[in-house]
Amino acid sequence: MCRLLAYKGRPLPVDDLLYRPDHSLVQQSHHANEVSEPLNGDGFGLGWYEPDITREPAVFASVTPAWNNRNLRYMAPKLVSPCILAHVRAATEGQVSEFNCHPFHHQNLLMAHNGSVRPFARIKRALVERLSDERFLWLKGQTDSEHLFALFLDRYLARRERDAEAMADALQAMFDELAALKAAHGVTQASGLNMVVTDGRALVAARHCDDPGVAPASLHHTEGSHYVCDAGGCRMAPAPHHEQAVLIASEPLTRESQHWRDVPARHFVLVDAHNRMSFRPIRMAGG
Amino acid sequence: MCRLLAYKGRPLPVDDLLYRPDHSLVQQSHHANEVSEPLNGDGFGLGWYEPDITREPAVFASVTPAWNNRNLRYMAPKLVSPCILAHVRAATEGQVSEFNCHPFHHQNLLMAHNGSVRPFARIKRALVERLSDERFLWLKGQTDSEHLFALFLDRYLARRERDAEAMADALQAMFDELAALKAAHGVTQASGLNMVVTDGRALVAARHCDDPGVAPASLHHTEGSHYVCDAGGCRMAPAPHHEQAVLIASEPLTRESQHWRDVPARHFVLVDAHNRMSFRPIRMAGG
Amino acid sequence: MCRLLAYKGRPLPVDDLLYRPDHSLVQQSHHANEVSEPLNGDGFGLGWYEPDITREPAVFASVTPAWNNRNLRYMAPKLVSPCILAHVRAATEGQVSEFNCHPFHHQNLLMAHNGSVRPFARIKRALVERLSDERFLWLKGQTDSEHLFALFLDRYLARRERDAEAMADALQAMFDELAALKAAHGVTQASGLNMVVTDGRALVAARHCDDPGVAPASLHHTEGSHYVCDAGGCRMAPAPHHEQAVLIASEPLTRESQHWRDVPARHFVLVDAHNRMSFRPIRMAGG
Amino acid sequence: MCRLLAYKGRPLPVDDLLYRPDHSLVQQSHHANEVSEPLNGDGFGLGWYEPDITREPAVFASVTPAWNNRNLRYMAPKLVSPCILAHVRAATEGQVSEFNCHPFHHQNLLMAHNGSVRPFARIKRALVERLSDERFLWLKGQTDSEHLFALFLDRYLARRERDAEAMADALQAMFDELAALKAAHGVTQASGLNMVVTDGRALVAARHCDDPGVAPASLHHTEGSHYVCDAGGCRMAPAPHHEQAVLIASEPLTRESQHWRDVPARHFVLVDAHNRMSFRPIRMAGG
Repeated sequence: MCRLLAYKGRPLPVDDLLYRPDHSLVQQSHHANEVSEPLNGDGFGLGWYEPDITREPAVFASVTPAWNNRNLRYMAPKLVSPCILAHVRAATEGQVSEFNCHPFHHQNLLMAHNGSVRPFARIKRALVERLSDERFLWLKGQTDSEHLFALFLDRYLARRERDAEAMADALQAMFDELAALKAAHGVTQASGLNMVVTDGRALVAARHCDDPGVAPASLHHTEGSHYVCDAGGCRMAPAPHHEQAVLIASEPLTRESQHWRDVPARHFVLVDAHNRMSFRPIRMAGG
Repeated sequence: MCRLLAYKGRPLPVDDLLYRPDHSLVQQSHHANEVSEPLNGDGFGLGWYEPDITREPAVFASVTPAWNNRNLRYMAPKLVSPCILAHVRAATEGQVSEFNCHPFHHQNLLMAHNGSVRPFARIKRALVERLSDERFLWLKGQTDSEHLFALFLDRYLARRERDAEAMADALQAMFDELAALKAAHGVTQASGLNMVVTDGRALVAARHCDDPGVAPASLHHTEGSHYVCDAGGCRMAPAPHHEQAVLIASEPLTRESQHWRDVPARHFVLVDAHNRMSFRPIRMAGG
Repeated sequence: MCRLLAYKGRPLPVDDLLYRPDHSLVQQSHHANEVSEPLNGDGFGLGWYEPDITREPAVFASVTPAWNNRNLRYMAPKLVSPCILAHVRAATEGQVSEFNCHPFHHQNLLMAHNGSVRPFARIKRALVERLSDERFLWLKGQTDSEHLFALFLDRYLARRERDAEAMADALQAMFDELAALKAAHGVTQASGLNMVVTDGRALVAARHCDDPGVAPASLHHTEGSHYVCDAGGCRMAPAPHHEQAVLIASEPLTRESQHWRDVPARHFVLVDAHNRMSFRPIRMAGG
Repeated sequence: MCRLLAYKGRPLPVDDLLYRPDHSLVQQSHHANEVSEPLNGDGFGLGWYEPDITREPAVFASVTPAWNNRNLRYMAPKLVSPCILAHVRAATEGQVSEFNCHPFHHQNLLMAHNGSVRPFARIKRALVERLSDERFLWLKGQTDSEHLFALFLDRYLARRERDAEAMADALQAMFDELAALKAAHGVTQASGLNMVVTDGRALVAARHCDDPGVAPASLHHTEGSHYVCDAGGCRMAPAPHHEQAVLIASEPLTRESQHWRDVPARHFVLVDAHNRMSFRPIRMAGG
């Protein structure tokens, strides 16, 4: 199981998410709590937006564990962004390679996934055949995650809208298509489908497992006016305020559990360009 | 352009091919002579057989340049083998990743390629569609080379014979199929197709370019009773002798040019289990 | 805490120590049992001897975790040796770099260490000042371990004998010198000093902690006629037999606990050129 | 020989120095012009300041060549800074390791070096003995460059002033000390001492070789109101203007040679907090 987080709000140093909190993402890379295997040491990735410069995000990924990466440690306090997506990997499908590190990116879009589709080999070829030529040629790695993102991209880019609703629609369409592929190839094992997609303005997270009898992996959220790290620790400052900030993570980064709530199972979290959050149920295939 | 070499003969330390000759493969990684760009610094790979242990080769590859790889330097004098295939890469198709390093391997087979098919994107999807499910799922990287090897594997593994003739037949069939794919998709640019395939017993090299008006990249061979490196340098000891040894390389490793001959353009070099060498013309598609 | 193992006996594929046993060293890299922190993911190293080729060992090390290293996985079944030393690292002193990976090597000697001297900064300069010029210039990394090896080397290389007794003598002299350095600089914290030194013929392991009130870290041994991995698992075949084999490891590799015994606390294990084992108490400084 | 560049001026994407110019630093990593060996493929490093965030620079370095580093490529357009120092390495003293990559950093200071002190082993120990305990413990790598920076740091940090004049004074003191060390140990070979030091506000470059009969390696500068990359290419816009910008590089990045001038041999270039440039001769030892 991987661990991921997404942040939208006032520009923040990556350090305040990856290192400074008690249960930071780097801490989760070796001591994850809410999963049987605490280790996420098969590489990591970080994507962030600098909206004043360009709409495309920067991506930094490495096959070494997050906890001992010198470059990540040195850069984290200096990389400041209003939209950050980070991921630490426990390899399931696809070997360890920079091309298998999350977040995956396409133009101004980033995507990270926690979960897996198994046995992915059973549907991989049929999935690839459904992709547009553009998306087929865009694929670089071996993971189920990147292939699901490719399916999503074909659906999302065919739309006109570019907002959180459109992202959720395309994620829903991708989940439906995955369900069809699994059914057509006799794959009955539950797929873990916690994922986050963003273009730096809108962001959608899914807490999803496609078997109604299986609880999705953990996914938490906290929101307020702004997130701060200071001598007293890291926390979300309470709203109301003219500002909004949202933080979504596989595991709470901070110990103040009252600030964190579970994303409802089988729901999308939509975050709009003004960092306002809403929920939407994920429709089960055949439901 | 990449540089490659293949050796079959008396067991030899890898060092005697990669470091000790004047114009060793590691030297060629930064100062290649017979190509406009002397630099092959986008990773390297080494495959070798230990026939007393198992029929499958060992493979060691890295994305760092061969010339400064500490592990390669330390291991080269200790890795001793009667069949060695090595490659230094100048990336053309496919980014720098261990999964794009040559030699590629499948069971007991190794393959390395010097050249490219451009624009590969034009035929990639059609090529992938022709692969068996097994080969489709076996693909790990992004290179034209690995995809050509996959085409070869489908043809070779469908045969009953396991010798140099069968390898050359399957390479020929792959070249024919590539020609058909290029024709079907309007790819007219010449493809460089110098490559080596081996299973540790038989070995076939091709010096090939599929445009009759374009000379294939350089490929040289030297053979004798055995290859030696001593205080006087590295060289092939002359035959006759009960032993046979063959060395095939993009560029001669040693300065004694009288010991090296060009592989004839558009020919296969076949090396059998007893290290006996023969040539066979490559049939041009539509010829 | 790191984990290490050393083997001497009939030539063996590295695979039989690193991957095939239930609790192989690679398994210990992410799920060590006999230590509070199960994770040893800060790089690894492997040294082995090929006595028919050269007396100097080959060394392969990487900063990536052992559990996902493609090269290690591919090479392990093919690297066969009668004397193998391997180490998975949990970084304490010294950042993650190939130059901080164990085993360290000098000419035909290898050394691996499990433990630490803290705070090493307090004695580092005085330790370095005691080194010969040769050893000072030989240092490449930052670890306490490499510096202790340098101290050992100065003492060992000044001797005429080249056997296990001489190695143990030089280790004892190094421990005494370390104790003097700690005393001179007011370092009172216990130092963990489990280590192995070998030249491919003789091998000495120490299970040591320099504070009599603190138990040394775990170190186990098993010996017999030869070590085998087959369908029934991995185990040491019982002696007597004309052959001898010895395996020493931070944690037993196999579940048959009756085959493994603790190395006595504060003892050297000496293994001679014929793989015969004996014990010798470590003399405490000022004792 | 390595290649380096330093920029101070209006905030700029790293891309405009490393990739966009005709003869960018990444281009120089494989096709340097003003040096016999065109290859600088033994790792690279980048340091930059984000003055609105913290006075300490960010550093990103890797042992892979700059030309194929995916992270550098992805991040370069997004990293924007008013003070940038970058370096591509051709290893001379010290093996390939992140700890041997330039720029070296200490608190808010960065330093990069093009040149070498040979044979460094002759003076290394005496140099280390002169260092303060703080600087001795700060050393991480093996290079002559880092050791020279340590000598500089001891001199610079002992001063009260924190400006370009003080940096040049401390560099001069370090050069004097190096000369004394060389003389004391019979090292007569010329040392190449092109280097840049900065704290993000002031910056000093030296074009220096300590043998009056040997020309220093190339070092060029261009200055104006601001540096721009657009459809017409990259160039320094002419002054006067209320802004100032300075670019110093081993080789001109752009083809407009009229915009670039040689740094005078054996001179410091001082750039103050307002990006105003001045020159100062380097005093030869014993002169």
